[in-house]
Amino acid sequence: MLTKIEIQDKIDNLNKPKGSLGFLETLALQICEIQQTLTPQLNHPCHLLFGADHGIEKEGVSVSPRCITWQQMINFTRGGGGVNMFCRQHGFKLRIVDVGVDYDLTAYPEIINRKVGKNGTNNFLHEAAMSTEEWNECLNIGSEMVNECHNEGCNVLSIGEMGIGNTSPSSVLMHLLLDIPLEKCVGAGAGLSSSGTKRKLAILQQAVDTFKANVHRQAQTNNMDTYETNRYIMQYFCGYEMAATIGAMLRAAELHMIIIVDGFIMTACILAASRLQQEVMKYAIFGHCGDESGHKLMLEEMGATPILSLGLRLGEGTGAMCAYPIIQSAVNMICEMNNFDNAKITKYF
Amino acid sequence: MLTKIEIQDKIDNLNKPKGSLGFLETLALQICEIQQTLTPQLNHPCHLLFGADHGIEKEGVSVSPRCITWQQMINFTRGGGGVNMFCRQHGFKLRIVDVGVDYDLTAYPEIINRKVGKNGTNNFLHEAAMSTEEWNECLNIGSEMVNECHNEGCNVLSIGEMGIGNTSPSSVLMHLLLDIPLEKCVGAGAGLSSSGTKRKLAILQQAVDTFKANVHRQAQTNNMDTYETNRYIMQYFCGYEMAATIGAMLRAAELHMIIIVDGFIMTACILAASRLQQEVMKYAIFGHCGDESGHKLMLEEMGATPILSLGLRLGEGTGAMCAYPIIQSAVNMICEMNNFDNAKITKYF
Repeated sequence: MLTKIEIQDKIDNLNKPKGSLGFLETLALQICEIQQTLTPQLNHPCHLLFGADHGIEKEGVSVSPRCITWQQMINFTRGGGGVNMFCRQHGFKLRIVDVGVDYDLTAYPEIINRKVGKNGTNNFLHEAAMSTEEWNECLNIGSEMVNECHNEGCNVLSIGEMGIGNTSPSSVLMHLLLDIPLEKCVGAGAGLSSSGTKRKLAILQQAVDTFKANVHRQAQTNNMDTYETNRYIMQYFCGYEMAATIGAMLRAAELHMIIIVDGFIMTACILAASRLQQEVMKYAIFGHCGDESGHKLMLEEMGATPILSLGLRLGEGTGAMCAYPIIQSAVNMICEMNNFDNAKITKYF
Repeated sequence: MLTKIEIQDKIDNLNKPKGSLGFLETLALQICEIQQTLTPQLNHPCHLLFGADHGIEKEGVSVSPRCITWQQMINFTRGGGGVNMFCRQHGFKLRIVDVGVDYDLTAYPEIINRKVGKNGTNNFLHEAAMSTEEWNECLNIGSEMVNECHNEGCNVLSIGEMGIGNTSPSSVLMHLLLDIPLEKCVGAGAGLSSSGTKRKLAILQQAVDTFKANVHRQAQTNNMDTYETNRYIMQYFCGYEMAATIGAMLRAAELHMIIIVDGFIMTACILAASRLQQEVMKYAIFGHCGDESGHKLMLEEMGATPILSLGLRLGEGTGAMCAYPIIQSAVNMICEMNNFDNAKITKYF
């Protein structure tokens, strides 16, 4: 077992003032711990993009119409989306997975067809978004996709999502799992107006109230433990693409892979995953703090420091991939920089 | 002449919610304006690294001894420094230029020998760091180096420095050119203790007081205009590597090249350059806000938004180069992303 002290010792002997490569040093330390080596490598980076539609979208909680989900899924197969651009720039292999888009995408062989539900999730304003069977299926799909990446030699994974309406379940997860007032968790998503955001908050409050009154209280009566209660919160509110992401994150951690976490939605997913298996956080590198109101607060509450803060709010995993070269720099630093001895430099402190 | 409106129109029609690529959109707009095209390119990136020693170092204002300057210059020729790692990662051609290192480096042909003074600058605690002739020579060297890069097809330049003690003149430039109290401009440099930083502040205050009493007042009597006064401040305090940098920045702007600005010292240099030629700011992209106390404030006062804030304080231009892939992403965005029409996506706002 490689200790933190051994890794820090190597970092402190590189030919630079101690600590002078700042957050790159923090990242290098984490990556060495994950890979249990002083000469880490980033191999065959993969980007998983899960797409699905959300029942809650029917309440008008998003500025974008539902059809954007399937249109963008097809656009990704043509290479013209934001996610494609970042995959090309940083050499990520892209896997696009339909876990429940409300459209038949079988004509597009580039999209892996693993639909859990044909028309997206149920509307969680009235009922659980998915059944326990569907939840388990999503987790399995996420896990299988990660296995495929791992079998190809991938040890660094980023995950993105396409699903109109998915800031809504993410806000609810943040609210319920971190016990932060809902109004601090709800934002404009891809571009709601101030009144639109207020409406979204009211709908989500209603959904949470219903959940608490009818289900959560009942669960407590049934002596569901914290783990099972948290899991049920996820099943009740998550989209299929979020559940698949949670499954992917849990499996990636088991396989000791680096998980680059994207924006608000992916942060909510790793928060959820960490409530099922705390260890997952050790493998998480937070790529980007986005513009979505609440993202900064969620990261702070989780003790997570993002690499970038560029005001991105596109989703698709673009914030995670945008940060990838910084992770590469951290690896290059610890693998390539001379130490004071072989650089023939006076060690001055 | 390509207008801002035309560029913004292209950005707003890419297949993404308006503004959802945040700061990448701001960067793309700036780069299109610099290059006067809707399909900008980044060609043959070059990194200029100017090295020199500082008279003020003799006052013990730095945690590192003077010999580190020449030792690191040699280390850079061997590829083991921080700057080398970033050059390799991002494909920058490195030019290492000795403009006044206190050591004979002629045995190293990889170091371009353009010494302006053999033993570094004078100690500005007692006298001007350099003569007017030396100042002009530095500016010429910087300009010539940029011409060489430009002749090779380079249109994007980053600049770094190696010079033990050079946060001191940078703090003084910030103080005198922005009229910010000196104590807000002085920090720990590469790692001074709190008492060391206090001592540094006292020495710099003394230097500024002497300058003001003996020279600045006299200059005012002689009716030196603001331009000439500012220029004299630079000559009085700058190191040779900083003066060469200012010359390089001015020439790069004339040639419509992108200038990626590194940390505290390079920000002080572009601040200085902008007082000689305001246009230079249009070409500046700020790579990184470092840890040095005062850097954040200096950037704010200049209205500059840095791409990264990773706590780097290594110098050498590493913060600028670390940000390069984000600049590439901005260019890829505007050149490669589909618009709503060719992506066949409903334009939803």
